[in-house]
Amino acid sequence: MSTHPLEEILHPQSIAVVGASNNPDAFGYRYTHHLLDYGYQGKIYPVNPRYSEIVGIKAYPSIRDIPGTVDYVICCIGASGVLNMLEECSQKGVKCVHLFTGRFSETGRREDAQLEQEILKKARKWGIRLIGPNCLGLYYPREGISYIHDFPREPGSVGMAFQTGGGSGFFIHLASLRGIRFSKVISYGNALDLNECDFLDYFAQDPETKIILMYVEGVRDGRKFFSSLRQAASTKPVIILKGGRGKSGMRAAASHTAALASSMKIWENLVAQAGAISAQDFDELADLAVSFYFLPPIEGPRVGMSGGGGGHSVLAADECEEAGLDVIPLPAEIREELRSKGSPIWDWVGNPIDTSILGGFGLTGTDMLQMMARNQNFDLLIAIINEHTPAGKEGIIRGSRIEVKGIIKVKKESSKPLLVVAGEKSPGIENHNYWRWRDLSKVRTKLLAANIPVYPTTGRAARAARTLMDYYQKRR
Amino acid sequence: MSTHPLEEILHPQSIAVVGASNNPDAFGYRYTHHLLDYGYQGKIYPVNPRYSEIVGIKAYPSIRDIPGTVDYVICCIGASGVLNMLEECSQKGVKCVHLFTGRFSETGRREDAQLEQEILKKARKWGIRLIGPNCLGLYYPREGISYIHDFPREPGSVGMAFQTGGGSGFFIHLASLRGIRFSKVISYGNALDLNECDFLDYFAQDPETKIILMYVEGVRDGRKFFSSLRQAASTKPVIILKGGRGKSGMRAAASHTAALASSMKIWENLVAQAGAISAQDFDELADLAVSFYFLPPIEGPRVGMSGGGGGHSVLAADECEEAGLDVIPLPAEIREELRSKGSPIWDWVGNPIDTSILGGFGLTGTDMLQMMARNQNFDLLIAIINEHTPAGKEGIIRGSRIEVKGIIKVKKESSKPLLVVAGEKSPGIENHNYWRWRDLSKVRTKLLAANIPVYPTTGRAARAARTLMDYYQKRR
Repeated sequence: MSTHPLEEILHPQSIAVVGASNNPDAFGYRYTHHLLDYGYQGKIYPVNPRYSEIVGIKAYPSIRDIPGTVDYVICCIGASGVLNMLEECSQKGVKCVHLFTGRFSETGRREDAQLEQEILKKARKWGIRLIGPNCLGLYYPREGISYIHDFPREPGSVGMAFQTGGGSGFFIHLASLRGIRFSKVISYGNALDLNECDFLDYFAQDPETKIILMYVEGVRDGRKFFSSLRQAASTKPVIILKGGRGKSGMRAAASHTAALASSMKIWENLVAQAGAISAQDFDELADLAVSFYFLPPIEGPRVGMSGGGGGHSVLAADECEEAGLDVIPLPAEIREELRSKGSPIWDWVGNPIDTSILGGFGLTGTDMLQMMARNQNFDLLIAIINEHTPAGKEGIIRGSRIEVKGIIKVKKESSKPLLVVAGEKSPGIENHNYWRWRDLSKVRTKLLAANIPVYPTTGRAARAARTLMDYYQKRR
Repeated sequence: MSTHPLEEILHPQSIAVVGASNNPDAFGYRYTHHLLDYGYQGKIYPVNPRYSEIVGIKAYPSIRDIPGTVDYVICCIGASGVLNMLEECSQKGVKCVHLFTGRFSETGRREDAQLEQEILKKARKWGIRLIGPNCLGLYYPREGISYIHDFPREPGSVGMAFQTGGGSGFFIHLASLRGIRFSKVISYGNALDLNECDFLDYFAQDPETKIILMYVEGVRDGRKFFSSLRQAASTKPVIILKGGRGKSGMRAAASHTAALASSMKIWENLVAQAGAISAQDFDELADLAVSFYFLPPIEGPRVGMSGGGGGHSVLAADECEEAGLDVIPLPAEIREELRSKGSPIWDWVGNPIDTSILGGFGLTGTDMLQMMARNQNFDLLIAIINEHTPAGKEGIIRGSRIEVKGIIKVKKESSKPLLVVAGEKSPGIENHNYWRWRDLSKVRTKLLAANIPVYPTTGRAARAARTLMDYYQKRR
């Protein structure tokens, strides 16, 4: 068990929800409900003078009235009530208050910023740590704490500190559809007390966390942040998405979390110097997270590719090269092996393998992928699911089943990094259950179950692979 | 009716499928089946000496045995039989042969390339035009001709000439999920006779085609191509995706369609000079096609944005700015209007509108979007579907219904270009029917039904919008 001060805060024996409610549209309802629903094992104390029972459990008029100790408070009341509530917390020995409450400095109004400062002053005086204000707080599946009702219940090894709550929800859904599970996530909003440095320091030493993701709009203390970042990045991959990069984004950031964004170029250089990785948007953040989550180190740029067929293969090669990978010609040993086995296309087939020319020659994409997996010349493999052959329904379903089986076989036999590309499709409701899109969903499920990462395009797979290669080469 | 020579070729009174088959896995089956299935109104003649009936209609041992005239032939037999078949076609007065047949120059072998040249020589001698070889041929929904069994049956106004067949299938599915429908699509493979220039010239004057999309690996005659391109681009938007951009992509292109790719920089400059637009991948091609398909001209870079909330709004502003749009501050008139209506957040809310701060103040995202639509300072509007509010199931479904209704209202009231961003999600089969992803599918269907284009990310919407703006400014 770690000795970092956040460790105790993140394992509360009891949680009070101040402003708890029986109205399902209220956050005070949701926080209480989710604690029960996710199986939080500590004591839950809903606080609201207007109810005697909330979500089926006894409610208390105030924190003062709670019989036992309270470790952690989730505060959903309006800004004007926070100071009073904090005082009650101090009397009760509360260790940490998560201020879901917003409308402080992010409004841009002086009086709101002043109240925020007053809250900080009092919290310091009373020894209470604050998460927020203006944030969604903690998602810690292992402890049964969540701020959204349908985040994954199984824990994983990705830790996240996000300055945006809605963005963190969007990203957790996005990443969990791609097979990622989380150790703990903190949406920390205005970062009045506990801030990005505290969370970085904590994740750096947290044995439950193997990969750290951050969304940051502004940092309180640049020098301290980059020092924490360097320390964290020396222990595990840290990937940062920066919001508020341009003048309008900065303006938006100011009214979102009152953060002051800095010059983007300087920022990115400092991130790279610290050994961390920059992502440009949620999709790239997900691609990189998925890559670190599922892949072994990528040692070099030489990629072997199969599938896609025709123009897809041509574009796939272009996209790999543009991402800085090296789509080497098919090694002579593989041509020789094909020739010795009597394959009539030994001199025609190349890398990328255009699987559309294999048909009828007793050679499958898996055969080719296996040869590449055994060959020393390749540092990584990319298999493109050939989802748009001109075959009919049965042919496509049969084909994708064989293809996926082959890819999983290669993955089991080889320790080479293996990435799969399968088109992302969002049909309208009228096509939602069409067999074509259902089949793609099945492909995805089977590959993820075999711990094989799936990317929507070759370009995105290639860019993520190249970033991983650079990361591992830098650390050698 | 156009007088272009392709016009007659594309409206055959009768089609023979040589190498037709009753085996559902064979292309000879598929072409015959799809003609029937898509309701082709001309005569269909399956040709195969081994069958007396194919897909329920009378089959003929050879082209010679067909009783009537034959305008168009789809050839699915092996390469070695093509010359004989051509000779029969010449006796029958066939105007055009689509050679699905492959394994010619794309194998890189001399004898295959020689046979290909011999075929060209004979076709010229006999006055037969060729599509292909090594291609999927024609998809013309209005005429009931298709090479894939589940392309849309309704016609539209996008014309495509694609040097890749599989890639064209992938793209047609991708684009049709985004609301696009097609006038006619030609997959033309090795471009032995009819080539990219012929198709460009044809689409340029084709009244059924409003937007031209091309996938090109190499062109036969650069000077002629750019002259055709200039001419076509002067009449309607032409968007080109180039395959074979790098050295490995070029290698792949050679073995795919035997095309020789040229230096990419020169290529892109020439495309721009001709007034056409370059796309980098299938996704960008789809984004641009969707934008031209649904949007009126975009006159300037000043964008008004709503939705997303919090970090999403911050990143959305960044992505717009990085794409070359101008996320202007909220105009004074709108602040004044908000203040005069007594809105307590008149001084806090900005552009992008963070809809997460509107709650409880009697102001909706639609209200804000309407004010922006009426305001002269905005050239375009981007609405981001707020799919990840922390609300529960009912709240999210209700919220998205209201949001979509509001967006459609704005679209009806205003002629301003309006783009919508809704996350693209590909769940595994276990989550395929989860309400969250079904709801997104419903959102997509409703918006497309109202002719509003939907993009998976703000960055992609913004880049497409900027490209359209440049296109229209150049033409003024």
